[in-house]
Amino acid sequence: MTLVPQIDGERLLGRLDAFARIGATPAGGVNRQALSVEDRSARRLLAELALKRGFGVFQDGMANLFIRREGVDAALPPLLIGSHLDSQPTGGRFDGALGTLSAFEALEALEDARVETAMPIEVVAWTNEEGSRFAPGVMGSMAFTGADTAAWKSTVASDGASLASELEATIAALPEATPRPIGVPISGYIELHIEQGPSLEKEQIPIGVVTAVQGTRWLEISIQGAAGHAGTTGLAYRKDPMVAAVAAMHSLQATIMPLDTSARLTVGRIAAQPGSINAIPQSVTFTVDLRHPRSERLDDIEAELRRVCAAEAAAQHCTATIRRSFDMPGAAFSPQMIDIVEAAATSLRLPHKQMISGAFHDALFIARVAPAAMIFVPCRDGLSHNEAEYVEPADAITGARVLLQAAIMAASSRDLLQR
Amino acid sequence: MTLVPQIDGERLLGRLDAFARIGATPAGGVNRQALSVEDRSARRLLAELALKRGFGVFQDGMANLFIRREGVDAALPPLLIGSHLDSQPTGGRFDGALGTLSAFEALEALEDARVETAMPIEVVAWTNEEGSRFAPGVMGSMAFTGADTAAWKSTVASDGASLASELEATIAALPEATPRPIGVPISGYIELHIEQGPSLEKEQIPIGVVTAVQGTRWLEISIQGAAGHAGTTGLAYRKDPMVAAVAAMHSLQATIMPLDTSARLTVGRIAAQPGSINAIPQSVTFTVDLRHPRSERLDDIEAELRRVCAAEAAAQHCTATIRRSFDMPGAAFSPQMIDIVEAAATSLRLPHKQMISGAFHDALFIARVAPAAMIFVPCRDGLSHNEAEYVEPADAITGARVLLQAAIMAASSRDLLQR
Repeated sequence: MTLVPQIDGERLLGRLDAFARIGATPAGGVNRQALSVEDRSARRLLAELALKRGFGVFQDGMANLFIRREGVDAALPPLLIGSHLDSQPTGGRFDGALGTLSAFEALEALEDARVETAMPIEVVAWTNEEGSRFAPGVMGSMAFTGADTAAWKSTVASDGASLASELEATIAALPEATPRPIGVPISGYIELHIEQGPSLEKEQIPIGVVTAVQGTRWLEISIQGAAGHAGTTGLAYRKDPMVAAVAAMHSLQATIMPLDTSARLTVGRIAAQPGSINAIPQSVTFTVDLRHPRSERLDDIEAELRRVCAAEAAAQHCTATIRRSFDMPGAAFSPQMIDIVEAAATSLRLPHKQMISGAFHDALFIARVAPAAMIFVPCRDGLSHNEAEYVEPADAITGARVLLQAAIMAASSRDLLQR
Repeated sequence: MTLVPQIDGERLLGRLDAFARIGATPAGGVNRQALSVEDRSARRLLAELALKRGFGVFQDGMANLFIRREGVDAALPPLLIGSHLDSQPTGGRFDGALGTLSAFEALEALEDARVETAMPIEVVAWTNEEGSRFAPGVMGSMAFTGADTAAWKSTVASDGASLASELEATIAALPEATPRPIGVPISGYIELHIEQGPSLEKEQIPIGVVTAVQGTRWLEISIQGAAGHAGTTGLAYRKDPMVAAVAAMHSLQATIMPLDTSARLTVGRIAAQPGSINAIPQSVTFTVDLRHPRSERLDDIEAELRRVCAAEAAAQHCTATIRRSFDMPGAAFSPQMIDIVEAAATSLRLPHKQMISGAFHDALFIARVAPAAMIFVPCRDGLSHNEAEYVEPADAITGARVLLQAAIMAASSRDLLQR
């Protein structure tokens, strides 16, 4: 007899607690940075739980960890569900862990109910999503999708450890795992994650159906003027880079986000040189973090920013130089996988809304090689990368239920198989 | 026979060179900070030159130094002409020295020509105008006009020296000077100074007739918002203090100076906390240096600034706190003394314009106790408090000629005597 698979809420919450103890900080968060001793402990715990349930345990050369439950047809590429286990140095208990442990709970629920799926399903814990100990982040999923990892070999952490040796040690610390090449074929990918933003909580919607990940560009603007005495320099003689910078920022802040609800524009850092209270600055520098799901809109906004900065600088007899310091294109998720997540939420009669992820995730890269989508759950005050990060137990369980349902639907989807 | 007194340009330039060697810096400037060994050397040189010409030398308890040439009526309060001999740590050769040495040159010119003046004329070198070694600046002139000096007794320099002991040592280093109480009656005061701004040079006008010194207020504005993820926080959920700060600065920059040509508004320092490129700041702080000749306008502008900052903060769901960290009222100079300076320039057929001083000077305080005015001469690129500070020799000599002429007129003025 086949049971209806059910998320065991208590088991899931217990697992979240158990993993939160690994690298726990006094303030209630976790410090479980990539490839650290704490990260290895978390991987070991997950592998032990998997082996106890009879699941397969695999590990690739980037230390990406896979927990496999076979499907009816073992020859089909697996459906991947998961997230990551590493954290920021003063990170929260849910960022990454919720997605990984919900995926494992879904696998156990299938096993508990003895439900067979057409495809194998694998829980994945991607290596180094955060990028706080070793830059860049999302290393595991980037490597999985074919990124050139050669440049990372020489990466050294702030604590002096080398990426190459920490990778080797982490892989060696889990000899029970069967080695596997990096980047095997997969049928699809679903990642549950906390929103890391305020909208679901504010709107009291338990499930976000993520349709895309925004692209991100960082721009560094420097406006050069002429230093001058604040008291003796009349308006006609000023080449004030602060006036130019303020006018440019004001123009952008008044137009970009209000006119395009998918756009994000943030000035997070600013300085005036020499920074004297009674002197017109010589120069003003500020940063702009730009986000948009569509690369062509990022191009448009960047062009507008360059035009505005140049014009406002010229109006003050100053000059503007603009440097693009970071550029990560966004990605739209697969319509089939979005439909599956939406159908899963609908079948469970859960209020949900389509939304765009403002942060990067491993799914951003996996979407390049397979149909992918994400499920978001609310987090308190939108807080993340913070020891005070918190998810209501009911919301965590609801997210896991949608993940389980979506995984069941995806693992038997003709659309995915035909891709 | 009485000659027409004439400025000896070569002598004046030679004196400027001689004093520029005292505390000379490799980059061509001077480091002759208040009450230092170098400051004492400069005072000694001036006193020796004075004694050689038979002038009286006096010194008060603030080490203000006076060089006196008697008038026809020794009972009349003297006309003071002069400036200061101390410099910024990387100061220029002309700031203070030009006014003091031009005044001494004027005294010598009178002596050379054996011209008698009704009033005695005294050259003054005020102590610690700059305030760079011992804060506050304009100490000598403030004390002369009755400021309470008790609070300064415990002042310690960045080099560890105490003001009290350095004052004592400086006074003791010039035993030839006759002691005199602080703040004797005077008939008037004229100070020649470099403009420390660009307007005379740009407009090719050799003489500025200074009608007032601006008041200065420093305001420190802090706007508190809520930190947030640059990517995940939509416009509706932002409490962005940078948007509020930019809107407030833009509003003020677009109105205050353009609408009131006597006003100066400068944002010289700004910072965002935590200053992360991909985070909405928690708070933004910036400074505003406000100047205006009239205190009631400073009051108006400060009120407008407070209103704008509060409104723009509220519009972004932020709060603004504003602290006034410095407030020095301005002063209008005496109409009689302004007329005298203007008449002197006119009699020498020199182009001149009335202007307001954007920087403080000792004259700001002396104007409280006697008719005072200032004469400005151009300096290259408006540069001052800088080792590259430069005044064309012809402009220095022209300034001294106006000072001499104005001193002759003031020292026999019925208006001043009737005051």
